[in-house]
Amino acid sequence: MTDPLPAWNDGAAKQAILDFVAQVTTAHSLTFVPPTDRIAVFDNDGTLWCEYPMYVQAFFVFDRIKALAPQHPEWHTQEPFASVLKGDLEAALAGGEHALVELVMATHAGMTTDEFTAIVTDWLATATHPTTQRPFTEMVYQPMVELLDYLRSHDFKIFIVSGGGIEFMRPWTEQVYGVPPEQVIGSSIKTKFEIRDGQPVIVRLPELLFLDDKEGKPAAIQHYIGRRPIAAFGNSDGDLQMLQWTSAGVGASLGLIVRHTDGDREFAYDKSAMCSLDVALAEASQRGWVVVDMKNDWTRIFAFES
Amino acid sequence: MTDPLPAWNDGAAKQAILDFVAQVTTAHSLTFVPPTDRIAVFDNDGTLWCEYPMYVQAFFVFDRIKALAPQHPEWHTQEPFASVLKGDLEAALAGGEHALVELVMATHAGMTTDEFTAIVTDWLATATHPTTQRPFTEMVYQPMVELLDYLRSHDFKIFIVSGGGIEFMRPWTEQVYGVPPEQVIGSSIKTKFEIRDGQPVIVRLPELLFLDDKEGKPAAIQHYIGRRPIAAFGNSDGDLQMLQWTSAGVGASLGLIVRHTDGDREFAYDKSAMCSLDVALAEASQRGWVVVDMKNDWTRIFAFES
Repeated sequence: MTDPLPAWNDGAAKQAILDFVAQVTTAHSLTFVPPTDRIAVFDNDGTLWCEYPMYVQAFFVFDRIKALAPQHPEWHTQEPFASVLKGDLEAALAGGEHALVELVMATHAGMTTDEFTAIVTDWLATATHPTTQRPFTEMVYQPMVELLDYLRSHDFKIFIVSGGGIEFMRPWTEQVYGVPPEQVIGSSIKTKFEIRDGQPVIVRLPELLFLDDKEGKPAAIQHYIGRRPIAAFGNSDGDLQMLQWTSAGVGASLGLIVRHTDGDREFAYDKSAMCSLDVALAEASQRGWVVVDMKNDWTRIFAFES
Repeated sequence: MTDPLPAWNDGAAKQAILDFVAQVTTAHSLTFVPPTDRIAVFDNDGTLWCEYPMYVQAFFVFDRIKALAPQHPEWHTQEPFASVLKGDLEAALAGGEHALVELVMATHAGMTTDEFTAIVTDWLATATHPTTQRPFTEMVYQPMVELLDYLRSHDFKIFIVSGGGIEFMRPWTEQVYGVPPEQVIGSSIKTKFEIRDGQPVIVRLPELLFLDDKEGKPAAIQHYIGRRPIAAFGNSDGDLQMLQWTSAGVGASLGLIVRHTDGDREFAYDKSAMCSLDVALAEASQRGWVVVDMKNDWTRIFAFES
């Protein structure tokens, strides 16, 4: 018997996962769930990969603004672009949601879907995390990668349900997490099919279609998957409703919150510039959700640790 | 060697299907496609099941209006409801798209997703086709069911991409076609997650989210699947752009149009009250799409035929 979760210390969190999987996969038990209904949903930022000091997609936005600046001389005097170009990200984001949407649309729309995939792929090939200097795709949590494999080996179908952009994730989730594009759900912008020079293309438009966060997550789960998950994994209040929806199903379910408690190997925070873990944490004990203490529950955080 | 497609007469259409599958599944051939990329998309109405004299979902709408009428005394004088209650469907639809949207929203919104699933399931259990008196779920094309099985046995992943309502199809597609809810794409309305009496629910709102027809189909394919299909199956001009998008990929692809030519065993029409096959048919020969002549290419149309 080899340990399926070697990056997890023996403890309550690991045992809860093993027990849940045993419950739903033991034939003829009252808690058995047929393989087709073994749907598991994972948040991405802060749950599968590092979100600190800010979302990876925010680094992408700022880098793309700099890369596109030569084609937009007006940006040097126009907020929020001017602050980004000066490297003052705090000032850039002082405009709140409106400023953020402007930055996202300027960098995520106006090209075809194939072109955007190439831009994301090229950026990820060279961009690195400011603290570790590692490629962002190495900033994934080894215990969670093991958990994905473990669930898949028990016929779970895994979906990512992230507030991040759906097309920002799809170019790399299959290689990094083993999750194919059709099992990636995220925020999205509108698109338009058209024929350009005789070739059909899908063009990305600067208009939000769906924000996949908070109340949006269970709505998206129903919309994309069409059945209720039996397991949900998150790390912030943005995942609260997804956890509630999963837990309210008939039969056994697992809710799990990854708590960032390790300031040495990763970052220690319940609240960051981007999100906070507050209401979901308070609700965890009532609902029986597992709270993972990264410092004590995980033997390793990143695969690159010695 | 048993014939995988016994309801298909030997002929050009059947041979084109067999040749395509051989091409993309023969290892080391130039046209080989790895299993993960074997995505096939199927229209539903008129391609997998009967759409004549009108979409099954339209029968559902009219039956629901009648069922709900006691709670809506105002409908007896208010169009388009009054005409529906008098049984004059032509007059009901004379108000065009606006009238149709009113009828759809009155019957598809205002309840939770679980309630809507129960309503659809209950209706399908007793509703029958006006000509054959058969349940609508028996009005599926046996040759197409065989084709779904044949493609699946060669590791294709099958998605339904229909103009019909996504939640109208999901309650029965797994049982009837073997297509699970997460592989069903369709038109949709907005929803809202909320807590009611302590229980989380998802409520259906009377507002269109996405119309999955014509240009919407390739956009939805990219949005839900995130990669380009290698095979597309349709029957009307509503499928034109989906066929174009599929055909324009790199490598081998199959486009196929089901043409309704059998007035004895089904219905003979290129144009109905609901849709028409015109531009897509003209483009078929240029693009190398297979046109299935139901009368001559299919030995059986419905499984219930003797």
